[in-house]
Amino acid sequence: MNRIFFTPGPSELYFTVPDHLRSALKENIGSISHRSSAFQKIYKNCIEELEKLLNIPSDFEILFASSATEIWERSLQNLVSEKADFFVNGSFSEKFYHTGEALLKHTTRHDAENYTWNNKFSKIDYATEFIAIAANETSIGMCTGMNEISTIKKAHPDKVLAIDVVSAIPYYEIDFAHCDMAYFSVQKGFGLPAGLGVWILKKSLIEVAAKKGLEDHISPHRRLSEMHKMAVKNQTTETPNVMAIYLLGKVCEDMNRRGIDQIRIETNYKAAVLNQAIEQSSLLDFLIQEERYRSKTTIVAACKGIEAQSIIDHLKNFGMIIGSGYGNNKNKHIRIANFPAHSKESIEQLADELLNYRK
Amino acid sequence: MNRIFFTPGPSELYFTVPDHLRSALKENIGSISHRSSAFQKIYKNCIEELEKLLNIPSDFEILFASSATEIWERSLQNLVSEKADFFVNGSFSEKFYHTGEALLKHTTRHDAENYTWNNKFSKIDYATEFIAIAANETSIGMCTGMNEISTIKKAHPDKVLAIDVVSAIPYYEIDFAHCDMAYFSVQKGFGLPAGLGVWILKKSLIEVAAKKGLEDHISPHRRLSEMHKMAVKNQTTETPNVMAIYLLGKVCEDMNRRGIDQIRIETNYKAAVLNQAIEQSSLLDFLIQEERYRSKTTIVAACKGIEAQSIIDHLKNFGMIIGSGYGNNKNKHIRIANFPAHSKESIEQLADELLNYRK
Repeated sequence: MNRIFFTPGPSELYFTVPDHLRSALKENIGSISHRSSAFQKIYKNCIEELEKLLNIPSDFEILFASSATEIWERSLQNLVSEKADFFVNGSFSEKFYHTGEALLKHTTRHDAENYTWNNKFSKIDYATEFIAIAANETSIGMCTGMNEISTIKKAHPDKVLAIDVVSAIPYYEIDFAHCDMAYFSVQKGFGLPAGLGVWILKKSLIEVAAKKGLEDHISPHRRLSEMHKMAVKNQTTETPNVMAIYLLGKVCEDMNRRGIDQIRIETNYKAAVLNQAIEQSSLLDFLIQEERYRSKTTIVAACKGIEAQSIIDHLKNFGMIIGSGYGNNKNKHIRIANFPAHSKESIEQLADELLNYRK
Repeated sequence: MNRIFFTPGPSELYFTVPDHLRSALKENIGSISHRSSAFQKIYKNCIEELEKLLNIPSDFEILFASSATEIWERSLQNLVSEKADFFVNGSFSEKFYHTGEALLKHTTRHDAENYTWNNKFSKIDYATEFIAIAANETSIGMCTGMNEISTIKKAHPDKVLAIDVVSAIPYYEIDFAHCDMAYFSVQKGFGLPAGLGVWILKKSLIEVAAKKGLEDHISPHRRLSEMHKMAVKNQTTETPNVMAIYLLGKVCEDMNRRGIDQIRIETNYKAAVLNQAIEQSSLLDFLIQEERYRSKTTIVAACKGIEAQSIIDHLKNFGMIIGSGYGNNKNKHIRIANFPAHSKESIEQLADELLNYRK
């Protein structure tokens, strides 16, 4: 039986990935040198297609790392001398906070309560250099809109505002006028195999580590200045995941051809279908009560009088693989990815089966 | 025209890789969760096949990172409080030294002269905690045998001895009784696409960072104790390059079936063929005069009265892609990989064309 992965990442591969992998083998992408002009062309294509898809302005640069987890570490190493603030509303934003605790002298966490932010954004103190917030907290499917994020930036224009768009993108529209960096990994909304992190940041930040005297103590391959020096040559500091950069460029090409507006319209439609099923189901409830905080790309429902595993197992019989709750909520929530790789038809079938299911 | 990559990494893919990639797509390896039992099975298989192929004893653990470059950084972060010594005989061992300069209070470098070590191994002082040496320095094709490396370990049993086996392995036979850690990336001797580093280290080292008080300042996902905690569950701390772990396990299976002894015999034969061509060519000379330091897996020749590019271009006409010299030696040396992915026939053809070439 064919299986479709609605897990919130790794997830279903974008439908063109198998063809691109075949082309990659024909074109020896696994063998070419990362210092060759063939690689530089692949790199450049990936950057240009990403810029187009996400509407990234020219004062931002795109860099590659191995994962979003690595970008947590690298951004703090390169951009913060002493203090950062973290908005925590789930397991992933909390992990970023723990990375801060390890690397920095001072950290403050601001916890969401009952899946809403309620005045939390005003409590950032003067000494803070860096503010972290998850646009989409994958563990609970809570989305914080760019309008809310931009209020933080407007109140603190001198601080680096970093947003985690891991499972939100490319649907989520980043307003680059109101953030300084955004990052994601490719195994979520881009429908690619895991193994690449993408770091989009304001070019003016590239010299921060050097200016703050941080650079000397960062491994040379992850100093922003060194990464930038190679990036302008369409190269990376180390041998990167060449295949992933190739595939990301190709999938962005495909998505650009389809059109980001179309992708957003379809995502909204599919989210509505899933949300309607949750509303109608006697076994499910919205985890997040305030509608504006409900993610459209990672739909999370709380189970009522039933274990999540039972719903997961039922759907598995139809070849539909959905995610369990995260961490301690493993058996209490279900999580369903709504990424560009998920067709309208597959989401409709999933919604039907959710509703068909009785205890 | 089909091309064969004799570049010293990324290099020719192992001949079974395209088939394994096709199977990976069928088995949804790009979509499965890195927390699923399906992933744990893949992880376990990879570890077991590696242990078998490289004869890794049970007091060693295998961990994954994104590249050998990253392992330079992570090993120093986790294992060294103050001082490390670096044996430098080319660009890669020098880069490891530069990583040490960035991360540590004290470093000492011991430079090879004229591609030989001449009494360099005796000058390690008492305060040194960590000794780095490249078994195979890819930039110049200099190999340091395990017999020489073990003399260092015997003289300094209390220090961590780390060996870079990046482009030597699986041919190079690591004597785990006389080293504490070894590391490599998969795009060289394993014939895989780039994007995975493998770190083999003595289990007794896992608690060093905690004992030395280093752990609190390392990003949680790269604390050895955290990596170990996940490794015993056949998982990783972050979402890893799942596809690469799958492919590495499969290629190790294939190599185990072929037999490591057979691979070593063939490598020796192919090295002899290439070395004979260098000896007979009027345009080439051995870069390294002392035969025992000549790598069998990365064969490097100095060009006599001709630019390397001219030889490289000639071979390209026949679909054979070889490497240029590294860095400043770009046009002075040629570098030829002799990995398990390179068949005897392809190496014989390459040797023939090297000899056919006249200015």
